[in-house]
Amino acid sequence: MKRQITSLSNPLIKEIRKLRNKKERDSSGTFFVEGIRAVGEALRTQQKIETIVYCPELLESDFGNHLVSEMSNDFEGLIEVPSDVFESFSLKEGPQGLAAVVRQAWSSLDDVTRDRGVWMALESIQDPGNLGTILRSLDAAGGKGVILLGQSTDPHHPSAVRASTGAIFTQKLIRVELTSFKEWKLETGYPLIGTYCGDVNPYRDYNYPQDLILMMGSEQKGLQEEHLTLCDALVTIPMNGSVDSLNVSVAASIVLFEIYYQKEREA
Amino acid sequence: MKRQITSLSNPLIKEIRKLRNKKERDSSGTFFVEGIRAVGEALRTQQKIETIVYCPELLESDFGNHLVSEMSNDFEGLIEVPSDVFESFSLKEGPQGLAAVVRQAWSSLDDVTRDRGVWMALESIQDPGNLGTILRSLDAAGGKGVILLGQSTDPHHPSAVRASTGAIFTQKLIRVELTSFKEWKLETGYPLIGTYCGDVNPYRDYNYPQDLILMMGSEQKGLQEEHLTLCDALVTIPMNGSVDSLNVSVAASIVLFEIYYQKEREA
Repeated sequence: MKRQITSLSNPLIKEIRKLRNKKERDSSGTFFVEGIRAVGEALRTQQKIETIVYCPELLESDFGNHLVSEMSNDFEGLIEVPSDVFESFSLKEGPQGLAAVVRQAWSSLDDVTRDRGVWMALESIQDPGNLGTILRSLDAAGGKGVILLGQSTDPHHPSAVRASTGAIFTQKLIRVELTSFKEWKLETGYPLIGTYCGDVNPYRDYNYPQDLILMMGSEQKGLQEEHLTLCDALVTIPMNGSVDSLNVSVAASIVLFEIYYQKEREA
Repeated sequence: MKRQITSLSNPLIKEIRKLRNKKERDSSGTFFVEGIRAVGEALRTQQKIETIVYCPELLESDFGNHLVSEMSNDFEGLIEVPSDVFESFSLKEGPQGLAAVVRQAWSSLDDVTRDRGVWMALESIQDPGNLGTILRSLDAAGGKGVILLGQSTDPHHPSAVRASTGAIFTQKLIRVELTSFKEWKLETGYPLIGTYCGDVNPYRDYNYPQDLILMMGSEQKGLQEEHLTLCDALVTIPMNGSVDSLNVSVAASIVLFEIYYQKEREA
């Protein structure tokens, strides 16, 4: 059930290369993942996988070869390529010889009310690496997913996917306009906690509810007045030193792990 | 006291461009910083600045122009360039028109025993962005500096400098061989706490000493046996979810902010 492609200019290989661009990801509704662990997570979490590409010369891992041999029985999208073809779309320095094209999965705000727990809302987050790192931390802290507001970067950008180390498949992704988010918040009353640099609750002193959305602003600007007024409470991370702020994924993780700690202590 | 350079092939401009490469940074003993905030921090912390380059067309900030006019009285290394020259070495998407070449400042292990407090030791950290983010968090948590062991990346790499948001100038930098670090540790008994994925103290349950070095391993491998045996204690970050680890700068920051919290509570 596998095909072999040896040409760099094969249309399918060209399409895989194009998935680096947001426009192509948007129009195809798919994205590219690479590496044994990431492809393994896509399979484990039963993503809709369109294509799996492997390169026998590069694929040294037993686990990777096991995945491929399992797929070869009943999966139609398995493609074998030589190393020059694999390297033409690989974004890793040492390619592992396993990659996949996966259908994007988007959730809606209804999923938040249905699958209650800890979520994050990110307003205009710019850097895909930061977004991926937040997904990774959110997964590790038992979170459910992210709500992307404003001009937030694409979670399916290769840097976001890589930094998420598989959490792109375990965390739900929602993209909504701020106006829809506001309406939904007012309607459902789902607890919303904002982070803010200023004279508000230190993040350690606040008693977090069981279900909540932790809201953070962009790397440059933080949360704006229109977001802050939506929040039920604001928390801050007290700090010292001459640098007056933290990386956004670091700040998110510090608060997420306080929330996680409080939950575990109460459990 | 300022010079004007308008040629892209001027030797000084070429040298600035070359500072992207570690080899050039190593041989010149300098590095490149860019942006109003970063150059401002270099001045504020009294770094040895070799050159300041500014571009009047790009420099819109009042603070930036104020810095330049202050320098123009008595600083010999001030250079004015047109925007095409500035953009030839700029690494920012929207260049602010202010950059500097700064002499690298390295400390030694004697500085740790002299300037006691919270330090980090990083074994073979790979990604310069992660190293810069750790410097930023360390500054924010009142730390003193980093000890780079093994094949650690260069803290003066442009991505590290940028991610540090100025902490490259406030945190001390030490690079030593593991054998020298071992000898120093055994001699001084400076408390060393390692982070480890396994059945050790949860990081919240451990009572951190006033002075300590927090030690972390590389992104891929964590700490190895030879490092773990050096440590006085090991701590771990309990987590949930299918991702079984955190980004190294996130993990460092979570433990650093626990240490900071304990110190502040006791103070």
